[in-house]
Parts: sequence; C-alpha cells; structure tokens
Amino acid sequence: MPSRTDRPLTLLTDYGVGGEHVGALHLALAAACPDAPRVDIAHDIPPGDIRWGALTLSRHAPALPSAVHLAVVDPGVGGPRRALAIGLEDDGYVVGPDNGLLGPIADVLRVRIAVELRAMPADVPRTFHGRDLFAPAAAHLSTGGLLVELGAEIDPAGIVHPRTDPPKVVPGLLSAEVAGRDRFGNISLLARRADLVRAELGSGPLMVLGSDGRAVGVTAGTRFGDVAPGELLLYEDSNRVLSVAQRGGDAWAVLGCVSGSRLTVTARRT
Amino acid sequence: MPSRTDRPLTLLTDYGVGGEHVGALHLALAAACPDAPRVDIAHDIPPGDIRWGALTLSRHAPALPSAVHLAVVDPGVGGPRRALAIGLEDDGYVVGPDNGLLGPIADVLRVRIAVELRAMPADVPRTFHGRDLFAPAAAHLSTGGLLVELGAEIDPAGIVHPRTDPPKVVPGLLSAEVAGRDRFGNISLLARRADLVRAELGSGPLMVLGSDGRAVGVTAGTRFGDVAPGELLLYEDSNRVLSVAQRGGDAWAVLGCVSGSRLTVTARRT
Amino acid sequence: MPSRTDRPLTLLTDYGVGGEHVGALHLALAAACPDAPRVDIAHDIPPGDIRWGALTLSRHAPALPSAVHLAVVDPGVGGPRRALAIGLEDDGYVVGPDNGLLGPIADVLRVRIAVELRAMPADVPRTFHGRDLFAPAAAHLSTGGLLVELGAEIDPAGIVHPRTDPPKVVPGLLSAEVAGRDRFGNISLLARRADLVRAELGSGPLMVLGSDGRAVGVTAGTRFGDVAPGELLLYEDSNRVLSVAQRGGDAWAVLGCVSGSRLTVTARRT
Repeated sequence: MPSRTDRPLTLLTDYGVGGEHVGALHLALAAACPDAPRVDIAHDIPPGDIRWGALTLSRHAPALPSAVHLAVVDPGVGGPRRALAIGLEDDGYVVGPDNGLLGPIADVLRVRIAVELRAMPADVPRTFHGRDLFAPAAAHLSTGGLLVELGAEIDPAGIVHPRTDPPKVVPGLLSAEVAGRDRFGNISLLARRADLVRAELGSGPLMVLGSDGRAVGVTAGTRFGDVAPGELLLYEDSNRVLSVAQRGGDAWAVLGCVSGSRLTVTARRT
Repeated sequence: MPSRTDRPLTLLTDYGVGGEHVGALHLALAAACPDAPRVDIAHDIPPGDIRWGALTLSRHAPALPSAVHLAVVDPGVGGPRRALAIGLEDDGYVVGPDNGLLGPIADVLRVRIAVELRAMPADVPRTFHGRDLFAPAAAHLSTGGLLVELGAEIDPAGIVHPRTDPPKVVPGLLSAEVAGRDRFGNISLLARRADLVRAELGSGPLMVLGSDGRAVGVTAGTRFGDVAPGELLLYEDSNRVLSVAQRGGDAWAVLGCVSGSRLTVTARRT
Repeated sequence: MPSRTDRPLTLLTDYGVGGEHVGALHLALAAACPDAPRVDIAHDIPPGDIRWGALTLSRHAPALPSAVHLAVVDPGVGGPRRALAIGLEDDGYVVGPDNGLLGPIADVLRVRIAVELRAMPADVPRTFHGRDLFAPAAAHLSTGGLLVELGAEIDPAGIVHPRTDPPKVVPGLLSAEVAGRDRFGNISLLARRADLVRAELGSGPLMVLGSDGRAVGVTAGTRFGDVAPGELLLYEDSNRVLSVAQRGGDAWAVLGCVSGSRLTVTARRT
C-alpha cells in the first residue's frame, strides 16, 4: 500500500502524448516516487499555448484535490520566467513555470504558500526543466517533502496570469474570444452561459459570425440532440463554459477558427 | 495491496488520446477508486465510429476478464439511447451507451445480468456522460458495489448491436466490408480466414479490388515476410480476422479505402 | 505492496499511442503481472524507424535501471530476425527484436547475459510478437522468472546495431545525419557538442545547410532565449546530443529535413 505521504501526481504539458518528453517525465517520477499514482490530464495543449494550458489545468486539476499537479507549457524555458511550487488551501500542490500557466488554478484553489524553485546546477541542460527541475520538485512534494525546502517564499499576489479577455456583451450581441478546441472540433469560448443571458440571447434562433466574416445559424441548447445533424449548437459544456459544436461535424472548421480569433453571436433575423 | 474488491478498469473511447476528455475520465476514476489499476485499451476510435469501437472492445477486453470495462463512443450523448452496466458471465463488467458499442462484447463474454443506469440529476451537464455518468458507475463496480444498485434490470436480449454485414462468399470471390485500419494502414475486414477458404481463395496469387475500381495483386500468407517490400499481403491478423497489409507501406491508401467501403478478393488471372 | 520481484516495466514501440496495439500490450502485462508498474517511454517512433527507436530507448531507459524494458519496432516481425531478452549489468532487462533496436542500450548499460527467445507455438499469429512473444517474456522477468528459462544463451557480441554514421568533422565544417525530430520540430543530429568544438564552430554566427541546398543562419547557444523569436539555435539538447531548434517554430520544416537527410554547419561569412 502506498505510504500516506505519497500523493498522486497529475501531468499536463504541451509535449505531445506518446513522445519521449512525456515518457521522460514519467520515468523521472517513477524513479523518484515509485509508489505515487500518476494521472495524465492532457499533453495535447498546442505548443506554447500557455492560456489554453492554464484553463485546462484549472478546470480539471480540482478533480483530484490532494494531488501534486505538474504542469509544463514553457516556451520560455531557460529564460527569466520564475519556476514555482505552490501549496494550495485545499491540500494539494502545483508545480510549473510562472508564465501564466499557474494563475487560473491558483485562483480556483487558492494559494496557501508559494516558493520560487532554486536554480539548477550549471551543468544541467537548460532546455528540459520539465524533467530536470519541475519533476524532481513534484516528486519531493509527493513523497512528503516540505515546500519550503524547495526555495524561497514569494508573494502569491505576484503569480502571473494569462490574458483572458472578458466577453463583450450588449443587448442582442455577445462577442467572445476563442480559447481552444477539442478533438471533435468543438469550440471553447472565453464566455459563460450567464453572458449569453445578459446579452438576451439565451434561446431562439441565433447567428454566429467568425472572424473572417462567415455567418452560420446556431441554436442555443443543452445537448447535441437539440439540433439536427450538421447544424450548430451553442451550449454550456462540461467545463461550464460556453461552447459551439456541430452535431456530427467540426465546428472549428465550419467557422474558420484560428487561435485567438473571436466569435460573435447575435439574434437570427427571420 | 489493493483490496480484493478493487477491480482493474479498462478504458476505450473516441476522445483522442492526450486530450482533456481522456484525462477527465482518469481523474474521475483516480478520485473515486484510487487503488484500482487503469488500463487504456484505445482512445483513437474514429469519432462516432460505434462499430469499430465495438469490435475493438470485443477483441481486447477479454484479455482482462475480471475488469470493469468502461467504453464510450457516444455520438448520441444526452439523447434517447440507454446507458447500461452489464455483468458478464466470466466475472467482469461493461459500462457504456446502448448504441451498438456493447453488443459484440456482450456476445463474446455473455451477459449474466444487465441494468439501465438511472438518469443523472438535471443540473449535470448533458454532454459528458463519460465522466459524469459512466465513470462513476464503473468506479462503483470496481470498488465492490452491486450492479442492481445502479438501476433497473433490463432484458439482455434487447442490447443493441452494430451493423456488421457478413461477407459475400461465392467460389472464386470474397467481398467484405472494411471495418477499420491501424496506424500502419493495415485494413481490417469483416471476414475471417474461413470465409476465404469457403471462397476457394486460401492460397495462390489473388487480386483485391477497392470500391473505386482499383485492382491490385495480393498474396495470401501468414506474415509480412511472405511478400516482397511494397506488395500486399492477405492474412489472418492478431485479432483472428482477415486483413490486408502492404509490406513497409500503407494498404489503406493503396486501395483507396474509406470508412464503410468494401474490398473484393478474386483469383488473379495469370 | 508489490512483491520484491515485480519489477517495473517500460514500453517503447512504433505502434502509435492511443491505439489498440499499445492497449493490447498493456492488457497482456496487466493480466500477467498486475502488480508491476508500467511506464510508457514512447510510442510515436516513426513506423519501422529502428534507429530512432534504438536511440530513444538508449537515452531514456537508463532513468529506470531496474526495470524490464519492452521495446518493439519490428518491421520484420515473423521473419528471420532473432527475438532477444538481455540481462544488463546494472540489474535491469531489455526484451525485443534483434534488428538493431537493442544495440545502443546494450552498449550503454552493458550486457551481463543474453538469450534468444524460444519460437512460439505454430498456432500463434505471426504478426503481433509484441503481445504474443515479447510481452510474456517481459512479464516473466518482471515477476522474478529466470532469463535462462526463456531460451538459449547467445554471444552478446552478436547483438545487431543500427547504422549510425559518425559525423564528418573538419576545421570550419561539421556534417551530421538527421536522426529524428520531436513534436516541436527540433532536430536531433548524430553528433555531439564535442564534434562542434572539434570543428572549431563552438561559438559565433554559423550557417546550417539542409540536404536540398537551403542555408539558414544559426547561433550556437544553450537555451531557446539565446536567439530571437524565429531564429535557429544549435544546442546540446537534454539527451546531450547536438540539436537544432527554431525559437517558437519548427526547425525541421525550416530546413526541409526528411528522415536520413544530413545537415552541414559552417561559419557564417559576415
């Protein structure tokens, strides 16, 4: 039976699943804390997409509150950004770069204490902090090591947050930034169902406009069966954020989305 | 040591490996039954391809007969299809949507008892039954909970089966539907070696014709070395079904297969 | 608690992560040695790329020295190549085909004893030795079985090595073969930092020439921040081999690499 101090570990990266980089993280953790369960949250964060990584982490990590969450989306590896380990109010920990990736989860689970990880010896490669800096810190915490042994305490108020533009809401119009997509082409927006209600667009036939001007009819609903095959659905997804799906298809392609583009929802003129 | 009632869990979905949806299933299971081993069977089922998911499940789940098999290929999530948990004669369980996904495994491992899962509370999102309905049911069974606590018993004869057209066999000709492909482009057919023998095509130089009319020579054999590099092999694959491979290449592309297309095998005129 | 003889297992294949073939390996191992931890090193080795699989295995397997390393990149499955199990000096084991895949790890960790696996019964499919031959052998070793029970001892000097051309080094010029790429498009070369130093190119502005004649400026450095966004960096990567990256981009595409192509590094004329 795992000892009481071997916390489970979760992993979230933009390394791409199935590759040697994710493998190297698992090997480092399996060697340092063999009795700690390891759970992969996601490894398909688009390379360098800190914001999408941060949102994904903040949405899923709370499902395993006592875990040590190891998160690495780190295009500035080896650069001046800080490396952090954070103790959360609800018992768990988060370890990763202070480039915005940790801001949303720190908001959701609240910071009890945070430290900046000590720099690595000069002879360690500068390009794989996931394996060489963050994984050892996570293993230290999983096996009962103290947070304060990892570095000097910092002010939690200084933890970096990613840019997440609030939606623009006026009666009859909701404009929101595209945050990401899943495998099915479902589009996750930086908006919530309450924003749609504030825009007085909570029901009825709607239009959605892509950044490139294309306009497609969409129906507000709660499940894919609410629209006919091929039609678009505007719904609160399982992360409780507003999303657009095409039943049986790929909404991302239909609306010509690209990373950082916006979608605008309006009433449909009939 | 895991308690005796913590059964291993297997996972099969069309969510795409490496993404947050598979991660969310693992997190839900790790939180609810931390001592149960979890084994991923496959997550690369083409989106919504219930039949290929059903065949893959029925071929591989029997390797771990005492497990709880959690299977979700569910394009109709939130719609009228039933959600089931099935107790198998050989000890294990299967949990998933009753849309055809569970039919073949129910045939292979035989049903002892089946129940329809109770509907979820109204405030649960309708689009992620994998995490919110099926995973909790699987965790309940893994940790020793009773099947009948999950819902009302149903008649196993009513479990939905996917369409699996039998091959057409006449002397000198075998026509079979394409069921799926693997990473190497090897084509899995809805036919068995016995069908080839019935068609009197068990050996010698053969032709294979794609749906679009292209015709390529193929050799019946048992291993890739039976043909020269670049040539096609017709063989009984490791799932004991008839398959077509190109040595060192991609038979799927060579024969212009698409999902649901057919291949026809005949003797080669020499 | 796992018994003392249940060694961890690592897996490296070209099967593609998320597919039924990797799933079948995990199922076979979970059934045969349920208490042995399983760690995936990589499954995205390009199909049949024995050399890249061999290098990846030799770089990462030493992180878990007491494990049984199951490696399958086996385009000649069912053909005359031998199937081996190797006992390493530092305690662990390697199991896989003797087609070059095992040569580099045997060099790095040194062979204590090696055996050729006994042939399988004739009624076993000839196309999935990973599941049907290598996984059972690995499980046997994980659970404390003896190596000599698996087959007859062979001379370790006969273990096959992959072709790994040494770099060409003259003052002012380093030419090296491209060994592989990661998800970010970073290019791994068959050369080391010492080769660059021998070529008197350890610092300053450099040029890198692709096989197709294109020439791009590159800077020797130690971390991505050493170059501006969009520029190329020549660095010793986390595997301690010479690599080329584009900051925020895909060096593989920029330099038009294909498998087996070469890159040449020279001084930049200013």
